[in-house]
Amino acid sequence: MPIITLTSDFGTEDWFVGTMKGVIATIHPEATIVDITHAIASGDIRTGAFALAASYKYFPEGTVHVAIVDPGVGSKRRAIAIQTERYFFVGPDNGVLSYAVRGEKIRMVRVLENAAYFLKSVSQTFHGRDMFAPVATHLARGAAISKLGPSATNFVRLDWPEPKMSDNTIEGEVIYADKFGNAITNIPAACLAKPRNRFEVFKGRRRLCSVEDFYQSVPTGKAVAVPGSSGYLEIAVNGGNASATLGLERSNPVEVRLVTIQSVAGRAGGGRKGR
Amino acid sequence: MPIITLTSDFGTEDWFVGTMKGVIATIHPEATIVDITHAIASGDIRTGAFALAASYKYFPEGTVHVAIVDPGVGSKRRAIAIQTERYFFVGPDNGVLSYAVRGEKIRMVRVLENAAYFLKSVSQTFHGRDMFAPVATHLARGAAISKLGPSATNFVRLDWPEPKMSDNTIEGEVIYADKFGNAITNIPAACLAKPRNRFEVFKGRRRLCSVEDFYQSVPTGKAVAVPGSSGYLEIAVNGGNASATLGLERSNPVEVRLVTIQSVAGRAGGGRKGR
Amino acid sequence: MPIITLTSDFGTEDWFVGTMKGVIATIHPEATIVDITHAIASGDIRTGAFALAASYKYFPEGTVHVAIVDPGVGSKRRAIAIQTERYFFVGPDNGVLSYAVRGEKIRMVRVLENAAYFLKSVSQTFHGRDMFAPVATHLARGAAISKLGPSATNFVRLDWPEPKMSDNTIEGEVIYADKFGNAITNIPAACLAKPRNRFEVFKGRRRLCSVEDFYQSVPTGKAVAVPGSSGYLEIAVNGGNASATLGLERSNPVEVRLVTIQSVAGRAGGGRKGR
Repeated sequence: MPIITLTSDFGTEDWFVGTMKGVIATIHPEATIVDITHAIASGDIRTGAFALAASYKYFPEGTVHVAIVDPGVGSKRRAIAIQTERYFFVGPDNGVLSYAVRGEKIRMVRVLENAAYFLKSVSQTFHGRDMFAPVATHLARGAAISKLGPSATNFVRLDWPEPKMSDNTIEGEVIYADKFGNAITNIPAACLAKPRNRFEVFKGRRRLCSVEDFYQSVPTGKAVAVPGSSGYLEIAVNGGNASATLGLERSNPVEVRLVTIQSVAGRAGGGRKGR
Repeated sequence: MPIITLTSDFGTEDWFVGTMKGVIATIHPEATIVDITHAIASGDIRTGAFALAASYKYFPEGTVHVAIVDPGVGSKRRAIAIQTERYFFVGPDNGVLSYAVRGEKIRMVRVLENAAYFLKSVSQTFHGRDMFAPVATHLARGAAISKLGPSATNFVRLDWPEPKMSDNTIEGEVIYADKFGNAITNIPAACLAKPRNRFEVFKGRRRLCSVEDFYQSVPTGKAVAVPGSSGYLEIAVNGGNASATLGLERSNPVEVRLVTIQSVAGRAGGGRKGR
Repeated sequence: MPIITLTSDFGTEDWFVGTMKGVIATIHPEATIVDITHAIASGDIRTGAFALAASYKYFPEGTVHVAIVDPGVGSKRRAIAIQTERYFFVGPDNGVLSYAVRGEKIRMVRVLENAAYFLKSVSQTFHGRDMFAPVATHLARGAAISKLGPSATNFVRLDWPEPKMSDNTIEGEVIYADKFGNAITNIPAACLAKPRNRFEVFKGRRRLCSVEDFYQSVPTGKAVAVPGSSGYLEIAVNGGNASATLGLERSNPVEVRLVTIQSVAGRAGGGRKGR
């Protein structure tokens, strides 16, 4: 039995997620359900898309990924299922699935219109329970995606903020601040070949830190940038909260600069003055 | 193997819920456990009862629903198990089960007194772990409810605040504010036949909004009432937090009025003046 | 299939815990995973150790307990697996496992060095996903712990603050404040034989409360100490938050005094004056 994952802005304070799990278990009691997160800020489609993109590929082939950040629930926005080479993705057609499928080979997109795969009564405020949970469970049980509704040639894709790369600098931005206050950027960690401390991170004219291998490469309380587990450069404060103390919030621009030997020498002095 | 659901005020910060799951798994490793919510405010029996009532019926027949909001743990308050036509309910006899069983046909009520179904050592502060989790697991495994203890002819039922209905108005109140700030009322959505925008919602003399079909029926930032997924009218702000911005908290009275053609005309003008 | 439990400071806001579960399910789709808590304060190794110690023994024999509070991830700190008579424990070698294994008979300690049991690519910021989750799953599937890496003769053990006992007093301290605001101490409940109200609890010169059997032994709003479910004396306020209202935070000293008949008489008067 494939796994069903859930990503949403439903929170865990109310009974919404539990109710979806009841629906899944009613259709297939042996289903395995994994929560990715339900703490996406209400209506924040972009962050929901990023959370799914950062996690989906750690699940086994055949997993059905459900992502619901759905302020337009009940309106004319479409609901879709996407089959890729390895996974299924189910959710509203508002972009919440689009970051995850960027790296996947898409096989089929279907619009969820076949009410035979929904609960008998479909509310206009909780499609997670009435439509997405049942559809996902039927897919996990082996229903053909083609039965869910008509084929779609396109779906809503959110812009991904590509960093601007030149010979000596990468201009990127903060994408996400995690629970530890680490600021995850859109700068691919793969761009920062070793030795990493040739690279330094700036916010505007302010030097934040150099790039190192792990958090404790710097003393407690000091900033450091590391190749993060999501595949992007992330800016942290060892033992602290980088987002709060360095003022790094989503969409804030940051810049990585390749430091030459001369500028390393310069940095040493500047660094001492600067603190 | 039937499902065991858990609803409580234990939070997820501590190890309490995880420990209950360990007890369940020790008695029956194959048990499927679903969290409904553990974020009920400490000791808020009424909200726990409502969360269970809003979700329990989405689970398959035979599910064992455990609800624990139990400020009287260790005192002389009874612990009970209720068998209805479709489900089992287990918890303290303080009303936390009573909203859910309002809509169910009750078959049997038993007082939990048979220590053979408890952990060997029963604390006086954590019956969730020592009594309710093991009892629920034994029920899920097929133990007869009659073995749990003596039959009871009654149990604590919380008052349900019935709305007052007249020809043109329904006087109700706010029952719950959810994670999105949507204020769920005690007014059955079924009372509001289409076309729904004949109905308007007032808080005292202040008109809040009309009743529509879904959240985005109104522009961003505007209030709207919709038939909510729990079966009750709920008051929302599209893209916002109705509870916070409209001052809608539990027990606050709200009123739905049937608007005649004349008063629709009047409203149009009044609405313009009022804003 | 044995159970895998997860205790961490990862929070549930991000996708970190969900991703670990994806890794576990990829290696073994039938694995049963139980969250103990992910709400340990970032980097608070001691509290993570206490949460695990308070819950681990309620799980069936063979359970693999994973605990990750790991500010040194990526540095030279070791990662270990410990086999005890009944369980496996997996985590960083920084003491987070040490409170739990205090009460267990240790059979073997291994340093996690065999990359065949890790994900193919191991980040330096998320060993939970890349190392601990796969190792735990392999152990749960029956891999021999001896294959994970070289044997270790020792591991990091956190000091446990033993209470100081004399004939008439026990000097202890607050170890943890739970979701209800109950302050759990390091004073074993077993020291306080019945009748319990012979004992009184002091913070410095201030009498806080007497020891009773359960929370509602005192009127609403009054303080009470009870034998807590973790096996230690805990200080509560019936219907309130003892940690906040009595100022009981971790490491705060508290003292239990055996009250003689004479001092009970004295207390009655003193108590009236004191409030």
